[in-house]
Amino acid sequence: MPEFLQSLPPDEARSLLLSHLPGPITDSESISTVSSLGRVTADDIIALHPLPEFPHSAMDGYAVRAQDTFGATDSLPAYLNLVGEVPMGDAPTFELQSGHCALIHTGGMLPDGADAVVMLEYVQSAQTNEIEIMRPVAEGENVIRVGEDVAEGTVILPRGRMMRPAEIGGLMAWGSVQLNVIRKIRVGIISSGDELVYPSQQPHRGQVRDVNAYTLFSLVMKSGGEGVLYGIVPDQLSELKDMASRALAECDVVLITAGSSTRDITMAVMDSLGAPGVLVHGINMRPGKPTILGVCDGKAVIGLPGNPVSALVNGYLFVVPVIEKLLGLPTDKPRPSVMARLTVNIASQAGREDWILVKLFPVHNSLSRRASERGIGNGEWDAEPIFGKSNLIFTFAAADGLLRIPPDATGVSAGEIVDVMLI
Amino acid sequence: MPEFLQSLPPDEARSLLLSHLPGPITDSESISTVSSLGRVTADDIIALHPLPEFPHSAMDGYAVRAQDTFGATDSLPAYLNLVGEVPMGDAPTFELQSGHCALIHTGGMLPDGADAVVMLEYVQSAQTNEIEIMRPVAEGENVIRVGEDVAEGTVILPRGRMMRPAEIGGLMAWGSVQLNVIRKIRVGIISSGDELVYPSQQPHRGQVRDVNAYTLFSLVMKSGGEGVLYGIVPDQLSELKDMASRALAECDVVLITAGSSTRDITMAVMDSLGAPGVLVHGINMRPGKPTILGVCDGKAVIGLPGNPVSALVNGYLFVVPVIEKLLGLPTDKPRPSVMARLTVNIASQAGREDWILVKLFPVHNSLSRRASERGIGNGEWDAEPIFGKSNLIFTFAAADGLLRIPPDATGVSAGEIVDVMLI
Repeated sequence: MPEFLQSLPPDEARSLLLSHLPGPITDSESISTVSSLGRVTADDIIALHPLPEFPHSAMDGYAVRAQDTFGATDSLPAYLNLVGEVPMGDAPTFELQSGHCALIHTGGMLPDGADAVVMLEYVQSAQTNEIEIMRPVAEGENVIRVGEDVAEGTVILPRGRMMRPAEIGGLMAWGSVQLNVIRKIRVGIISSGDELVYPSQQPHRGQVRDVNAYTLFSLVMKSGGEGVLYGIVPDQLSELKDMASRALAECDVVLITAGSSTRDITMAVMDSLGAPGVLVHGINMRPGKPTILGVCDGKAVIGLPGNPVSALVNGYLFVVPVIEKLLGLPTDKPRPSVMARLTVNIASQAGREDWILVKLFPVHNSLSRRASERGIGNGEWDAEPIFGKSNLIFTFAAADGLLRIPPDATGVSAGEIVDVMLI
Repeated sequence: MPEFLQSLPPDEARSLLLSHLPGPITDSESISTVSSLGRVTADDIIALHPLPEFPHSAMDGYAVRAQDTFGATDSLPAYLNLVGEVPMGDAPTFELQSGHCALIHTGGMLPDGADAVVMLEYVQSAQTNEIEIMRPVAEGENVIRVGEDVAEGTVILPRGRMMRPAEIGGLMAWGSVQLNVIRKIRVGIISSGDELVYPSQQPHRGQVRDVNAYTLFSLVMKSGGEGVLYGIVPDQLSELKDMASRALAECDVVLITAGSSTRDITMAVMDSLGAPGVLVHGINMRPGKPTILGVCDGKAVIGLPGNPVSALVNGYLFVVPVIEKLLGLPTDKPRPSVMARLTVNIASQAGREDWILVKLFPVHNSLSRRASERGIGNGEWDAEPIFGKSNLIFTFAAADGLLRIPPDATGVSAGEIVDVMLI
């Protein structure tokens, strides 16, 4: 029978689990930079030369010596001789003399002698070979200096950086077409329960298809891990222990989803596989109270409830942070969320943390101009809780996010603005 | 020379572009459900049978006839004969008679005759074959009824639904191991500029490696598209036209990144490839003012500035919505964002929309308990703008998000709470 007397608050349970894990994994693999989206850098990447390597124009205009423009105004323009045009993709073949200027395009290399660029809109052509400049420019104005993007020796990307489009483009600027990334975190997934059959099988009465292995597999893939499916194991200590032992040897993390009838077996398996074994055998939250957290010989083993909603919510709250720690990602990064107005009162038991599935609806014809101006797609939102038993996977599929009700609250009132974690 | 007299506000420009596109693409492909993360359903998926298919227990407890428990209290419990245990994974072989009960586990099939489950904690065992029930249960209590998750004939997932872990698990419950999804949106990417070389090449002075093709490629891959790289084309009308024409024939969307020197050529190409051609030839925003939006024979063609920051910001604002429209995704979904406190004043020119790159820093030792309770990782955040010329790709790589300053604002003050779009 479940024993929840010593159940911990979720944040405390997560900290305890993470504190028993060793540091990030250091195994890396070399992949092409263009396919590195979502992967994590394995090394600090240092700039071996400055970027850009030559000074170039930030604007379309005229390359000048800044001091030739000092004091220029609309009524008393500076007159400069136009001596040529800087070709795109080539170094200029001339040096700019005092009193001279040259047409230059954005990205064009500044000729020797020039130290600033006058924007086109402050210039008039008086004669073919002479231009009038109406405004002075300072030295360096509209010029990208050598090393202005990145100075030589700078750490371009630190170890543990998740690759996004900007990081990928940045490395291309250096010609870094191959990249060392941390290998994917291998997460073994075991389903336990005599009532389970595989999705491709036809269940007879009393049986159900396994759902949790696939929701957790997808969550792992989405979070920088690589799911390894170990299939369905009967509710037997020896069989579960054998399979968990194999998964632990082959993976970095092991997940066991188990019905309540297998919970004691799961704990016994975790205690038998390596020290310290079970760390947390109940969490003071809903859903997901029966979740078991353990570490066996430096690897996280997590026992998740058989209810699909509980298993997936606790996957977000406990499995994803383990993957992120093993990848060496920063722990203090923001989670995608949206502010929304709760549509109804939600009651919650004081002392217990609740995570409520919510659906978000855009608010039309809103009085709040400010909220509707937040950005593309992000106007004002209503958050409507989806109530349903935690056995119902389609209540989760209907949800846009999760709303946390902290342990010391007895609920949230209709009309309150809440922070919804997007899933 | 660029002509921005008719430049449009970004939201208006985007609406104009999207309104000229036909409806979502309908071409689909069949893939395994387990690998469908991030893909989009091509059809409404209908429940051909109810879920669950048999009534089962939502708790560990005793299956009973509810009326046998009516009036039960601690001092006057109901006494029931324990006639057996429901095996997991099998239909019970007995029918429950009045005055009888059976041990049942979560997920166990309710025996015929039973209509409710009493939780373990409200039961005492008096004798081996008799239990005492301290609380009454109502009919249906702690039972998942046939069709309670999904009734027969329900649309389980509508067309145009992005597959997440819960959707994947949901389909597994039906045994739907194959799935029709919309094929990926093909986005052709052309880089134009005589100064560009490929990342694997060694630039000589005056040349730079192409960055934009790869930032946009990655953004496309991240957003449900499939990037097709057409390489670097010289600044020549005929060559750009030939390449764009080929890309338009092979793809659903074409992106051309071009320096200012190629802007007029890009517009001429777009006007020559099909009606209506150029729709927007300048956007009242910073960065990204020179962006060109067009539609040629029903396909979006977007000309992005050569500056890496401008190209990527406008990729988020204009390219991603086009992909989402073609996939048939809902247009009114929330964008991942985080509320943060701006650290400094930012000035902005009235009438122009600004998008500012910001870095987010967690606020420690905050007075605001409430903010720190928002969820895992989501405490309170400071947003610090990253100022830098839009040519500098590493300013983008250092950013966590984008902050929008609407056209009618003249800036945002230090201390204001702003909504940062995560990138």
